This record gives sequence, C-alpha cells and structure tokens, in this order.
Amino acid sequence: MFKKIGIFGKYNGVQSWESIETLIQHLQNRSKTVFLDSASCHNCPYERYGIEIIDREKMAQHIDVAIVVGGDGTFLDVVRTIVDQNIPILGINLGRLGFLTDISPKEMTSILDDVMEGIYESEERNLIRVIIKKDDDILFDQLAFNDVVIHKTDSPRMIEFETFVDDRFFNSQRSDGMIISTPTGSTAYGLSAGGPILDPSLDVLSLVSINPHTMSNRPYVISGESVVELRPHEDCHSTAQIICDGQITYLISAGYRTIVTRHPNFIKMIHPKGHDHFELLRAKLHWGDKL
Amino acid sequence: MFKKIGIFGKYNGVQSWESIETLIQHLQNRSKTVFLDSASCHNCPYERYGIEIIDREKMAQHIDVAIVVGGDGTFLDVVRTIVDQNIPILGINLGRLGFLTDISPKEMTSILDDVMEGIYESEERNLIRVIIKKDDDILFDQLAFNDVVIHKTDSPRMIEFETFVDDRFFNSQRSDGMIISTPTGSTAYGLSAGGPILDPSLDVLSLVSINPHTMSNRPYVISGESVVELRPHEDCHSTAQIICDGQITYLISAGYRTIVTRHPNFIKMIHPKGHDHFELLRAKLHWGDKL
Amino acid sequence: MFKKIGIFGKYNGVQSWESIETLIQHLQNRSKTVFLDSASCHNCPYERYGIEIIDREKMAQHIDVAIVVGGDGTFLDVVRTIVDQNIPILGINLGRLGFLTDISPKEMTSILDDVMEGIYESEERNLIRVIIKKDDDILFDQLAFNDVVIHKTDSPRMIEFETFVDDRFFNSQRSDGMIISTPTGSTAYGLSAGGPILDPSLDVLSLVSINPHTMSNRPYVISGESVVELRPHEDCHSTAQIICDGQITYLISAGYRTIVTRHPNFIKMIHPKGHDHFELLRAKLHWGDKL
Amino acid sequence: MFKKIGIFGKYNGVQSWESIETLIQHLQNRSKTVFLDSASCHNCPYERYGIEIIDREKMAQHIDVAIVVGGDGTFLDVVRTIVDQNIPILGINLGRLGFLTDISPKEMTSILDDVMEGIYESEERNLIRVIIKKDDDILFDQLAFNDVVIHKTDSPRMIEFETFVDDRFFNSQRSDGMIISTPTGSTAYGLSAGGPILDPSLDVLSLVSINPHTMSNRPYVISGESVVELRPHEDCHSTAQIICDGQITYLISAGYRTIVTRHPNFIKMIHPKGHDHFELLRAKLHWGDKL
Repeated sequence: MFKKIGIFGKYNGVQSWESIETLIQHLQNRSKTVFLDSASCHNCPYERYGIEIIDREKMAQHIDVAIVVGGDGTFLDVVRTIVDQNIPILGINLGRLGFLTDISPKEMTSILDDVMEGIYESEERNLIRVIIKKDDDILFDQLAFNDVVIHKTDSPRMIEFETFVDDRFFNSQRSDGMIISTPTGSTAYGLSAGGPILDPSLDVLSLVSINPHTMSNRPYVISGESVVELRPHEDCHSTAQIICDGQITYLISAGYRTIVTRHPNFIKMIHPKGHDHFELLRAKLHWGDKL
Repeated sequence: MFKKIGIFGKYNGVQSWESIETLIQHLQNRSKTVFLDSASCHNCPYERYGIEIIDREKMAQHIDVAIVVGGDGTFLDVVRTIVDQNIPILGINLGRLGFLTDISPKEMTSILDDVMEGIYESEERNLIRVIIKKDDDILFDQLAFNDVVIHKTDSPRMIEFETFVDDRFFNSQRSDGMIISTPTGSTAYGLSAGGPILDPSLDVLSLVSINPHTMSNRPYVISGESVVELRPHEDCHSTAQIICDGQITYLISAGYRTIVTRHPNFIKMIHPKGHDHFELLRAKLHWGDKL
Repeated sequence: MFKKIGIFGKYNGVQSWESIETLIQHLQNRSKTVFLDSASCHNCPYERYGIEIIDREKMAQHIDVAIVVGGDGTFLDVVRTIVDQNIPILGINLGRLGFLTDISPKEMTSILDDVMEGIYESEERNLIRVIIKKDDDILFDQLAFNDVVIHKTDSPRMIEFETFVDDRFFNSQRSDGMIISTPTGSTAYGLSAGGPILDPSLDVLSLVSINPHTMSNRPYVISGESVVELRPHEDCHSTAQIICDGQITYLISAGYRTIVTRHPNFIKMIHPKGHDHFELLRAKLHWGDKL
Repeated sequence: MFKKIGIFGKYNGVQSWESIETLIQHLQNRSKTVFLDSASCHNCPYERYGIEIIDREKMAQHIDVAIVVGGDGTFLDVVRTIVDQNIPILGINLGRLGFLTDISPKEMTSILDDVMEGIYESEERNLIRVIIKKDDDILFDQLAFNDVVIHKTDSPRMIEFETFVDDRFFNSQRSDGMIISTPTGSTAYGLSAGGPILDPSLDVLSLVSINPHTMSNRPYVISGESVVELRPHEDCHSTAQIICDGQITYLISAGYRTIVTRHPNFIKMIHPKGHDHFELLRAKLHWGDKL
C-alpha cells in the first residue's frame, strides 16, 4: 500500500528523536522508503540510517503518506504542506494524547503495521484558505486547518469590523476578535471562546466572536461552501491581525479585505482501526462514560 | 401558480380574524379557492365567504400552499401537518416579527400578489421525526420543526441519560435535559440554553445540554443524517419527558428508547422576494448594523 | 470541648452504617455522649451501643456538634435543622469527596480526635430563608443552604415573573426559572446554570436565570442583606414552583409572593486543620495546579 | 454646598465644548468658582469666561466636586486623579447613556441646581490599586476603577500564569488572560468575557478568565479586602501585559509579580435624586420591563 513514508517531527525537536528512530528502523525493516523532514532532524544522528532529508515544504512530492511525530501544533503545520498533493496523514503524540496526534508511541509500530496493510480508518476533513487583499493586490495567501482568527493586536481596545457571508452583510461587531473554525479547530481555540463542537464529518465552519461587546452575539455555523469576508472599521490602522492556526500572523488595516473560503481539497486523516472520535472527546473533555 | 390556498390561524384565535378576513377577500378577488382551518375559526363569521372549513390535520390534501396567520407557535403546529404532502408554507405575524412568521399584516396582500405570480424566494429546512420505543413497541411517533427536548418533569432533581449517535455511544450526562435542535429551532430554545445558531440552509442538528452537571459539556453539531438515541438511566421512573416543539410531551422511564432522525421531506418555506435571513437575525437579536 | 455529639446519616441509609458504627465506638471510647439521628438508623443494630435515638428535627436541642455521614444532600437537610441553635457541623463523605462532606472515612477518626481537642478550622456561611405569602397569609416558610429556585413545573413552556430587590423593581423575565444561590450553593446548581463561584467567606447571593429568553440576561450578585421578592405573571396557575436545596418544593400561582432573605444565623462549618477551599475547588473542578 | 467645581472633558475634545460652555455659564451665574481641565480645553475659547485652567492631575487640590463631560472612558481617567482627595464626581454623557456618565446634557443644568442644593443621591464604589514588582523594586503603581487585566500581547499564543488570593495558591491557567473587575467594571469588559454583574454597593472583585483552555474554569467572586497576585509562567518574556481600565499598559515577564489590592478610599459618585441603578441596567442591557 504505502511505500514512501515521510516522517515529520517538531522543529529542532531533539526530544522526538527516540520515537523517530524507532519508526525509521521499523519501517526500513518493512522495506519502506523513509524520508525525513529537515526541520525536525537538526542535531540528530540521522546519517546512520541512510535516509533522505527533505525540506518540509517539498516533502509532499516524494511521499505517499505523512507521519507526524509530535503534538497537535506540529500536525497543523505539516497539514498545510501536504494538502495540495492529497497525501494522507497520521499523528503520533509524544506527550499527552492530542486531538490530531491520537496514536501513542507505545502502540505505534503495531498500528503502523496494520496501516501498511491497509487496515485503518480514514476520514476527510475540510480546511480553510485565507486571502488578504488590498484593492486588487493579494497580500497574503495561507491555509488553516484549525482556524483563522481576526484579533486585536497588543492594544487594550476592542476592534470593530464587519462580516459578510456569501457577499451578504452578516453583522458588525466590537469585540476582541472572531474565530472562523473548521470542525477540526472546534475543539481548540473555538471551544475556549464558547463555540460549539462540530462533528469532524461535517463540511461547515463556525463563526465565534471573542468577548463581543453586544451581549446577544452568539456562535454561528455556516456551510463550508460559504465565503466569509472580514472588513475592519475605518479607524483600524494595523490594530487588528489575521492569525492562521495560531502560527501565522498578518497585520491588517482599514481597506484590507480578508476572504475565507474552504480549500478545494480535504485532508485525509488516518486512524487506527476501531478509532472512535466520541471516545477521544470523552477522554479529553472528561465527559461521562456509560452508566 | 398556487390555486388552492389553506389559511391557518391560532386555536380559537379571534384576534386573528381580521387579518384572515382580509386575506380571504383578497384571495377570492384573485379567483383563488380558499380553505380555512377549523381549529382557528371558532366563533368567526366565516359563513359569509362561502369557504370550506377543513380539519387542520386533513388540510394538506386539499391545498397547494399554506398561509399561517399567527405566531411562531401556530406555524410550528401547522408545519407538522403539511410535511408529508410537501406543501409550501408562509407565515404572517400578528404581533411581533417572528423567525417563522416574517411577513407583517401591512404588506401581506402585496406580497401574496407577488407570491401568486411566482415572485418569491424559497428555502428548504429539515425537520425531525421522534419515535419512542419500548421493546419493539412504538409508543410515540411525532414530528418537530424546532426541537425535541428530553427534560426532567416537575422533580427538582436532574435526570441521567445516555446519548448514542449512529449507534455509537456519545456520552452520559446528569442535567436538566438536552435539546436536539434543527437549524430552525436554533434561534429558539436552543439559543436560550447556550447553543449555536445554525444557518437554515444546513442539514445539521445541534445537541445542547441544559444545565449539565459536568462543566466541560458543550453544544455538539451533527449531520442531519445522523440518528440520535436517548436512553434514560435505570432509576428513571417517569421522571423524564420528551417534548416536541414545546407543544407535545410524553413521559419516559428506564427501558424507553427515544430515536431521533431527520424526516425524509424538507419544509419548503416561502419568503418575500429579497428576504434576508441575516437581516432578520440582526433585527431580532439586536446585532450590529453596518458601520 | 465538644461533649454531646449528634450523628446524622442518610435516610434509611444502610450503606453508611459501617462508618457510623466506627464513629460511635470511637467517640464512646473518648467518653463522649453520642446521639443518633432516627432517620438514618432504620434497620441498623444501634441497640448494642446503648445510644439515644432522636428525631432529626429535635436533635439540635441535645448536642453541641453535628456530624453528618453521607453526601452533600444529607448535609443540606441537616443544616436546616441546626441553624437555630447555632450548632457547628462537619461532614464525612461516603462516596466521592463533596463540597460539604469534605472528610474521608479513612481519616475521620484522627480528624475527630483533633476536633475534640479544639484543633480545627471553622468558617461561617450564610443561608437563606424563604417565605411564600398570599395576601397576608404565610403559606410556606423554609430554609435553604444552597439555593432557592423558581422553576417551571412539568409544562414545556417558560414561566414569566418579576424580580424585586429591596423593594425596587429589578427585571422581568421569561425563562425556565431563576436560582438564588448562597456562596455554598454557587458550586452546585448555580454553577451548572452558568453562575459565578462566590467565595464562601462572602455574605452575598447570586441571581442566575435558567435559559432566559432575553439573551442579555446575566448572573447578578447582590448583598446577603438584600431582600429578594419573586412575583409570577398573572397567567401563572401553579405552573411555577419554589424549590429549596433541590429537596422541598411548593407550587405557586399569580398573586403569590416569594420573599427571600438571609437567615440571621450563619452556619458554622468545621474543617480539618489546614483545610484549603481552593484546593477543594481545584480537585473537584479539575483546575490547574501549580506550574 | 459645593463651591469649587472642576470640569473635565475628553482629551482635545472639541465636540464637548458646547456642553462645557453651557455648564460654565450656568455655574458662574450661580456664583460658583469653576476650574477647567487643561487636557480638554485645547483649542477652545475658554478665555472669555475668565476661568482657571488646571492640569488634570492637580485639579483635585482645587475643587470640591468633579463634573465629567464625556464618555465612560473620560470618567475612568478622571476618577484615578481624584480618589486621594475624596472628591465626589458626577458624569454628563455626550453621546449614548453611559454606566458612569448617566446624566444627559438636556437635564444637566436642572440636575446641577439640585446637586448644588444638596439634593442628590450618592454611593461609594471601590477601586483597585495595581502594583508590579520585580524582586523588591516597584515598577508600576496605578489605579483602576473598572478593571485590571492580564492579557497576552500580540502573540497568537495563550499565556500561562498562576493566581494567588491572600497568599494562598488559587489556580494556574492557560488562557488569553484574566480580568479582575470591580463592581463598576462588571458591566464593562468583564461582562463581555462572561463575568457576573456585581451590585455596585458590594465591596467585592470578580476574577474572570478570558478564553481559558480548561473548560471548567468559571468566574470567581472574592472579597474586596483580598489581595490578588499574578505570576506569569517562566516562559513569559514580555508576552503578557497588565492593563488598567483599558487605558494604561505595562509589559511583564517571568519573575514579575502583579499585586492587586482594593484602594483604601472609595469613589463617591453623585447621581440625580431618584437614580435607579436597575433602571440603568434594564435600559442598557435591554432587560425586561414590568409585566
């Protein structure tokens, strides 16, 4: 099934080397071709395995499956580099169980054996494309798997902006910002801000205001096929920023238009056979077990 | 276009007679055949118009469009009687602007003229079917356009129940109850309980717990194609009830299974040309207008 | 210090007999006079200890400290019977750690030895008196240590009522009800309904609406010295009820006035030396520990 | 009664000059001595009234009552300059009714006539003192009438910090920050973040986390006499800031201790006779009127 495997770790992540080493050996024993993410093998003795080191951004051209060894943050970063080539991805956590990195190091070799034989479950999840325009110039063009956020910068004052959905005026608000979240991101920042959890099978997005001044403001769920546009108030002079997955930021001012659409490709996530998203939710959120 | 029009008012609703009378005259002048809901014309001088009075439940067999004159409560009740025949429906409010009855009496005749000529907007909304089973017996079989709620009865104690989604265990909870809401109902009781607003175009449902004991409980949005099942705890002896649209209730006990599915038909709602759901939201929820 | 000790268990609570027996023996060995709550010793072989059985309501006249063996529900019930005599109280949990019954059976004998020697911490907490009047008749007069709740009965419809604070009109609301909570109750039902946690040292009360129709409704904190009055809408015919501590209920109608004041006495709660309320909160609510 | 009156407007606030002019004339006609805030009379023809211009910070030494003409923001700024001299204060709004500036320009002259004759209501409200220390050095020492906030700067990442109350460890949290609010501030930023409304008569403070990562985090109300201390995580290198009243900010790092106490003086606010705080709440928050 999968023959060319790309392994991605944390940036300069020495602490993940042990797991990565185990993985490499295990996969080479299974006669797989293993590629290693250049970002994550800094100062690691990868030479002894004779594997090819490739830039994270170019990895997708070489592999047919991506294995992330790290936390959900690493996973988010890798996802944005593989979506165009439709590479499936799975995540091995190093610390706590993550929503994305849901395979523990203990069980990783046996699960990988299954996966290599085609025994696994997979699901497709939407992700977001964010474009920032001024007049007709595209100033910013990025992806987000969890969420794109409009947020005040370090000013203590709220920002004011208008939201349009499918070219129709939605509302204006004064707030600390707003989160546009995928189902994947709905258990991340959107949840902290009071947003609903969206089933990962849905192609929808949620709009969740952050500390809105208007008390009747509520989370709103729209179709993944909708186009959202954010326009800051005319007073905004770089007092707002756009943030993708909590990792990439861009300052915006009045006159900038931020356009959020769903990416045409979906992310194919691989889980162990028998994976149960509800079980993950119950474990992570201390929800009630069977009576 | 529409030739046979059914008019529905409030139960024994004398206060809506004036609007209904205007409607009858106007539609008869346009050579339409008008039928009147027997529930709503109690003590009203309908005889002078020579129109046929028909039981609410049987009306759908005679008409090709339904006009509700009343509040959202009347609309909810009528919806359940017309879905099987796919009759389109529009709502004229008598008091305050409603989310469902969004045409004011002032503009109703001119809007109806447009509608009769095919000038209108329409949308399809999902609705819920609720079945309560014990062993293999079906004890209850009803529809809900807004929501189905499991709720404690008059006992001050919380109830405990398990929820399954698509035959997978979702969670157990101790709470005052839970709301399963359609997008239509998401601006009703679900909103009071902290649920998200769901765009009416979506075929999804939200699960919103009411005062849950577990503090990490959050609203959850599932596909409209999912099947939800509720199972009360073994201690439950008629201390819980199932409520459809806040109108129809049924006591349940341990061993009763409540199964919620989306009805195969959707409700076709008719709105005036230029109708804007976001405008309705902004007006009803005091949301921010254009800057 | 304490010589006459009253032990209170769960109603007909066979499962607590083992702990109660240990307590009796231990206290009799320390030459204390032990009294047993008649409600809790049903079917238990108390005769072998030659102790006096006394009705729960009369116990306070005989003892100088109350020991509750059970859960928080039992504690709430006992509190209402001892406040007039200013009897201090401590709670031993049988199952999970409770907010009120915060001593585990394992450590109870050693903690009691300390308490008997005057080594303990104590705090005073307010509690509520609830009077329901019609015209000049007092129909109901009860105490609540956690909360008094106005709530709809088994009707699916919201109730409508006015609230006055210190004879000034506060607001009217349509909702499922409202919780008036002491600091003690602020970690109970009030918390499930979105209310704040009130430090137990404060003499304040919180007003927390339950699923209010108006979206800008928010929890409100008033002085413990304030008088709250609730007046149901004229349409209310026994569709609302008043509930004290989730245990005592009374149906109300239009014309009934429910008056809530703080009781002149405070409850003196005894805790083990070194007791830390924040630690209890962190343990019960999964709050973050030291970094 | 009041003889020496200080008038404060918005910084460089030309738009408030008309009201200020009316006030000056009116008060001079009543033989009062009027002082004008230098910050607010920039470019205004104050010379024609022969009044003394004084720096905002020094005004309190000259006056026995302060009149703020502007919005709540101006009021907050002035409050901090008058608390040490115990000067009473009243606020005239220029635009929308404010929680602090609750007198409209229309009625200001007649209300001032009453106030000058001693016909008014007054209340005392607590305010906060914020000290930031490193080792034994005091780096920052400011007041806040609404709130002091610890908040991430422009980084998209949450901050992590510990909170102590009265030298006892309260909790640690990962969040966007936390608001420590007075009753006055409880209708401001704290309300947007989900905090309770605190009656202005109370000497309490609320701790309201902003988008906390832990889902069981809830607003907590403490005594105004408590001392709160905030300690950022060791990873914090100027990624957090302390903000007083949304106006004054200071960057903090690991090792900095932010200590929040209630100021020994209270602010004496003057309201027109018959002032009703609940009425203000109902008007500002669209709460329900009498049934």
